[in-house]
Amino acid sequence: MHKTSLLIVAHGSRRAESNLEIQQLAASIAEIAIKDYFSIDYAFLELAEPSISDIIDKYWHNGVQHIVLVPYFLSAGRHVQQDIPQQISAKQAQYPDLKITIINHLGAAPEMANLVLSMVKKYD
Amino acid sequence: MHKTSLLIVAHGSRRAESNLEIQQLAASIAEIAIKDYFSIDYAFLELAEPSISDIIDKYWHNGVQHIVLVPYFLSAGRHVQQDIPQQISAKQAQYPDLKITIINHLGAAPEMANLVLSMVKKYD
Repeated sequence: MHKTSLLIVAHGSRRAESNLEIQQLAASIAEIAIKDYFSIDYAFLELAEPSISDIIDKYWHNGVQHIVLVPYFLSAGRHVQQDIPQQISAKQAQYPDLKITIINHLGAAPEMANLVLSMVKKYD
Repeated sequence: MHKTSLLIVAHGSRRAESNLEIQQLAASIAEIAIKDYFSIDYAFLELAEPSISDIIDKYWHNGVQHIVLVPYFLSAGRHVQQDIPQQISAKQAQYPDLKITIINHLGAAPEMANLVLSMVKKYD
Protein backbone atom coordinates (compact mmCIF):
# COMPACT_ATOMS: atom_id res chain seq x y z
CA MET A 1 0.00 0.00 0.00
CA HIS A 2 1.23 3.49 -0.77
CA LYS A 3 1.83 5.77 2.16
CA THR A 4 -0.72 8.51 1.52
CA SER A 5 -1.28 11.43 3.90
CA LEU A 6 -4.19 13.82 3.90
CA LEU A 7 -3.21 17.44 4.50
CA ILE A 8 -5.74 20.18 5.28
CA VAL A 9 -4.25 23.59 4.41
CA ALA A 10 -5.96 26.60 5.98
CA HIS A 11 -5.05 30.26 5.83
CA GLY A 12 -3.84 30.63 9.40
CA SER A 13 -4.77 33.38 11.82
CA ARG A 14 -3.25 35.50 14.57
CA ARG A 15 -6.16 34.28 16.70
CA ALA A 16 -5.26 31.01 18.39
CA GLU A 17 -8.96 30.04 18.49
CA SER A 18 -9.20 30.12 14.70
CA ASN A 19 -6.18 27.87 14.32
CA LEU A 20 -7.62 25.57 16.96
CA GLU A 21 -10.76 25.15 14.82
CA ILE A 22 -8.52 23.66 12.11
CA GLN A 23 -6.74 21.40 14.55
CA GLN A 24 -10.11 20.13 15.78
CA LEU A 25 -11.36 19.64 12.24
CA ALA A 26 -8.29 17.56 11.38
CA ALA A 27 -8.91 15.50 14.53
CA SER A 28 -12.56 14.95 13.53
CA ILE A 29 -11.49 13.88 10.06
CA ALA A 30 -8.94 11.52 11.56
CA GLU A 31 -11.60 9.95 13.77
CA ILE A 32 -13.55 9.00 10.67
CA ALA A 33 -10.81 8.23 8.17
CA ILE A 34 -7.45 7.56 9.82
CA LYS A 35 -7.67 3.93 8.73
CA ASP A 36 -7.51 5.10 5.09
CA TYR A 37 -4.35 7.23 5.41
CA PHE A 38 -0.85 7.07 6.78
CA SER A 39 -1.67 10.30 8.63
CA ILE A 40 -4.14 13.18 8.58
CA ASP A 41 -2.64 16.60 9.29
CA TYR A 42 -3.13 20.34 8.99
CA ALA A 43 -0.85 23.18 7.99
CA PHE A 44 -1.21 26.93 7.58
CA LEU A 45 -0.40 29.07 4.58
CA GLU A 46 0.73 31.94 6.79
CA LEU A 47 0.57 33.52 10.25
CA ALA A 48 0.59 30.20 12.13
CA GLU A 49 2.50 26.97 12.58
CA PRO A 50 2.99 24.34 11.28
CA SER A 51 3.79 25.68 7.83
CA ILE A 52 3.22 23.65 4.68
CA SER A 53 6.98 23.35 4.30
CA ASP A 54 7.41 21.94 7.84
CA ILE A 55 4.77 19.29 7.30
CA ILE A 56 6.12 18.20 3.93
CA ASP A 57 9.62 17.89 5.38
CA LYS A 58 8.15 15.66 8.09
CA TYR A 59 6.26 13.59 5.52
CA TRP A 60 9.42 13.04 3.49
CA HIS A 61 11.31 12.03 6.60
CA ASN A 62 8.54 9.53 7.46
CA GLY A 63 8.46 7.95 4.02
CA VAL A 64 5.13 9.39 2.86
CA GLN A 65 4.79 8.83 -0.91
CA HIS A 66 1.61 10.74 -1.74
CA ILE A 67 0.08 13.86 -0.24
CA VAL A 68 -3.54 14.72 -0.90
CA LEU A 69 -3.81 18.43 -0.11
CA VAL A 70 -7.20 20.00 0.62
CA PRO A 71 -7.24 23.81 0.31
CA TYR A 72 -9.55 24.75 3.19
CA PHE A 73 -10.75 27.97 1.57
CA LEU A 74 -14.22 29.05 0.49
CA SER A 75 -13.24 30.84 -2.69
CA ALA A 76 -10.64 30.30 -5.36
CA GLY A 77 -8.81 33.56 -4.73
CA ARG A 78 -5.11 34.34 -4.74
CA HIS A 79 -4.33 31.98 -1.86
CA VAL A 80 -5.82 29.02 -3.70
CA GLN A 81 -4.71 29.94 -7.20
CA GLN A 82 -1.21 31.25 -6.52
CA ASP A 83 0.08 30.95 -2.95
CA ILE A 84 -0.57 27.26 -2.28
CA PRO A 85 0.66 26.11 -5.74
CA GLN A 86 3.81 28.25 -5.32
CA GLN A 87 4.64 26.78 -1.92
CA ILE A 88 3.96 23.27 -3.22
CA SER A 89 5.99 23.84 -6.34
CA ALA A 90 9.01 24.77 -4.21
CA LYS A 91 8.67 21.60 -2.10
CA GLN A 92 8.08 19.49 -5.21
CA ALA A 93 11.43 20.70 -6.57
CA GLN A 94 13.03 19.68 -3.28
CA TYR A 95 11.38 16.21 -3.24
CA PRO A 96 10.73 15.26 -6.89
CA ASP A 97 9.72 11.69 -5.97
CA LEU A 98 6.95 12.80 -3.65
CA LYS A 99 3.55 12.86 -5.33
CA ILE A 100 1.44 15.86 -4.30
CA THR A 101 -2.18 16.15 -5.40
CA ILE A 102 -3.87 19.50 -4.72
CA ILE A 103 -7.62 18.95 -4.89
CA ASN A 104 -10.39 21.51 -5.34
CA HIS A 105 -10.81 24.20 -2.70
CA LEU A 106 -13.50 23.52 -0.10
CA GLY A 107 -15.95 26.08 -1.51
CA ALA A 108 -16.23 24.01 -4.69
CA ALA A 109 -17.57 20.96 -2.83
CA PRO A 110 -20.66 19.67 -4.63
CA GLU A 111 -22.19 18.94 -1.21
CA MET A 112 -21.77 22.52 0.06
CA ALA A 113 -25.42 23.47 -0.51
CA ASN A 114 -26.52 20.49 1.57
CA LEU A 115 -24.00 21.34 4.29
CA VAL A 116 -25.44 24.85 4.58
CA LEU A 117 -28.96 23.42 4.73
CA SER A 118 -27.93 20.92 7.41
CA MET A 119 -27.06 23.90 9.61
CA VAL A 120 -30.31 25.81 9.14
CA LYS A 121 -32.76 22.92 9.26
CA LYS A 122 -33.65 23.36 12.87
CA TYR A 123 -34.54 27.04 12.37
CA ASP A 124 -37.26 26.46 9.75
CA MET B 1 -47.05 30.51 7.62
CA HIS B 2 -44.37 32.98 8.60
CA LYS B 3 -42.45 34.55 5.78
CA THR B 4 -38.92 33.30 6.46
CA SER B 5 -35.97 34.05 4.20
CA LEU B 6 -32.61 32.34 4.23
CA LEU B 7 -29.68 34.73 3.82
CA ILE B 8 -26.13 33.55 3.08
CA VAL B 9 -23.64 36.25 4.13
CA ALA B 10 -20.15 35.96 2.65
CA HIS B 11 -17.17 38.26 2.99
CA GLY B 12 -17.23 39.67 -0.54
CA SER B 13 -14.26 40.01 -2.86
CA ARG B 14 -12.85 42.37 -5.47
CA ARG B 15 -12.74 39.29 -7.73
CA ALA B 16 -16.05 38.90 -9.54
CA GLU B 17 -15.46 35.12 -9.79
CA SER B 18 -15.38 34.76 -6.00
CA ASN B 19 -18.66 36.61 -5.63
CA LEU B 20 -20.12 34.49 -8.40
CA GLU B 21 -19.29 31.35 -6.39
CA ILE B 22 -21.63 32.67 -3.66
CA GLN B 23 -24.35 33.51 -6.14
CA GLN B 24 -24.12 29.97 -7.52
CA LEU B 25 -24.17 28.47 -4.04
CA ALA B 26 -27.33 30.41 -3.19
CA ALA B 27 -28.87 29.15 -6.44
CA SER B 28 -27.93 25.55 -5.56
CA ILE B 29 -29.43 25.94 -2.10
CA ALA B 30 -32.58 27.40 -3.64
CA GLU B 31 -32.90 24.43 -5.99
CA ILE B 32 -33.06 22.14 -2.98
CA ALA B 33 -34.94 24.22 -0.44
CA ILE B 34 -36.85 27.09 -2.03
CA LYS B 35 -40.15 25.39 -1.10
CA ASP B 36 -39.23 25.87 2.58
CA TYR B 37 -38.53 29.62 2.43
CA PHE B 38 -40.05 32.82 1.15
CA SER B 39 -36.71 33.43 -0.56
CA ILE B 40 -33.08 32.34 -0.48
CA ASP B 41 -30.55 35.11 -0.99
CA TYR B 42 -26.93 36.15 -0.55
CA ALA B 43 -25.29 39.33 0.64
CA PHE B 44 -21.73 40.51 1.19
CA LEU B 45 -20.18 41.98 4.31
CA GLU B 46 -17.95 44.26 2.26
CA LEU B 47 -16.34 44.89 -1.15
CA ALA B 48 -19.31 43.65 -3.17
CA GLU B 49 -23.04 44.10 -3.70
CA PRO B 50 -25.68 43.46 -2.51
CA SER B 51 -24.88 44.57 1.02
CA ILE B 52 -26.59 43.10 4.06
CA SER B 53 -28.40 46.40 4.53
CA ASP B 54 -29.75 46.39 0.96
CA ILE B 55 -31.13 42.88 1.31
CA ILE B 56 -32.75 43.54 4.67
CA ASP B 57 -34.42 46.68 3.30
CA LYS B 58 -35.78 44.56 0.45
CA TYR B 59 -36.99 41.89 2.88
CA TRP B 60 -38.82 44.46 4.97
CA HIS B 61 -40.43 45.93 1.88
CA ASN B 62 -41.57 42.43 0.83
CA GLY B 63 -43.09 41.56 4.19
CA VAL B 64 -40.46 39.05 5.33
CA GLN B 65 -40.93 38.36 9.04
CA HIS B 66 -37.95 36.19 9.87
CA ILE B 67 -34.42 36.11 8.46
CA VAL B 68 -32.18 33.11 9.07
CA LEU B 69 -28.67 34.38 8.44
CA VAL B 70 -25.84 31.93 7.69
CA PRO B 71 -22.34 33.42 8.16
CA TYR B 72 -20.46 31.81 5.25
CA PHE B 73 -17.08 31.93 6.99
CA LEU B 74 -14.73 29.15 8.01
CA SER B 75 -13.58 30.64 11.28
CA ALA B 76 -15.20 32.69 14.00
CA GLY B 77 -12.94 35.68 13.57
CA ARG B 78 -13.71 39.39 13.71
CA HIS B 79 -16.11 39.28 10.75
CA VAL B 80 -18.28 36.64 12.43
CA GLN B 81 -17.98 37.87 15.99
CA GLN B 82 -18.17 41.63 15.46
CA ASP B 83 -18.86 42.85 11.93
CA ILE B 84 -21.96 40.80 11.08
CA PRO B 85 -23.60 41.32 14.52
CA GLN B 86 -22.90 45.07 14.27
CA GLN B 87 -24.49 45.39 10.84
CA ILE B 88 -27.47 43.30 11.97
CA SER B 89 -27.85 45.26 15.16
CA ALA B 90 -28.15 48.49 13.15
CA LYS B 91 -30.84 46.99 10.91
CA GLN B 92 -32.63 45.47 13.89
CA ALA B 93 -32.90 48.97 15.40
CA GLN B 94 -34.40 50.17 12.11
CA TYR B 95 -36.89 47.26 11.89
CA PRO B 96 -37.61 46.14 15.46
CA ASP B 97 -40.46 43.82 14.36
CA LEU B 98 -38.24 41.81 12.02
CA LYS B 99 -36.89 38.66 13.61
CA ILE B 100 -33.26 37.97 12.66
CA THR B 101 -31.55 34.74 13.67
CA ILE B 102 -27.79 34.56 13.10
CA ILE B 103 -26.78 30.90 13.13
CA ASN B 104 -23.33 29.37 13.62
CA HIS B 105 -20.63 30.17 11.08
CA LEU B 106 -20.09 27.55 8.39
CA GLY B 107 -16.80 26.29 9.82
CA ALA B 108 -18.67 25.07 12.91
CA ALA B 109 -20.86 22.69 10.89
CA PRO B 110 -20.84 19.27 12.55
CA GLU B 111 -20.80 17.74 9.07
CA MET B 112 -17.65 19.60 7.96
CA ALA B 113 -15.33 16.63 8.46
CA ASN B 114 -17.56 14.52 6.23
CA LEU B 115 -17.72 17.28 3.63
CA VAL B 116 -13.93 17.39 3.44
CA LEU B 117 -13.81 13.60 3.13
CA SER B 118 -16.44 13.64 0.39
CA MET B 119 -14.01 15.73 -1.67
CA VAL B 120 -10.97 13.51 -1.21
CA LYS B 121 -12.64 10.12 -1.50
CA LYS B 122 -11.78 9.62 -5.12
CA TYR B 123 -8.05 10.26 -4.46
CA ASP B 124 -7.59 7.45 -1.92
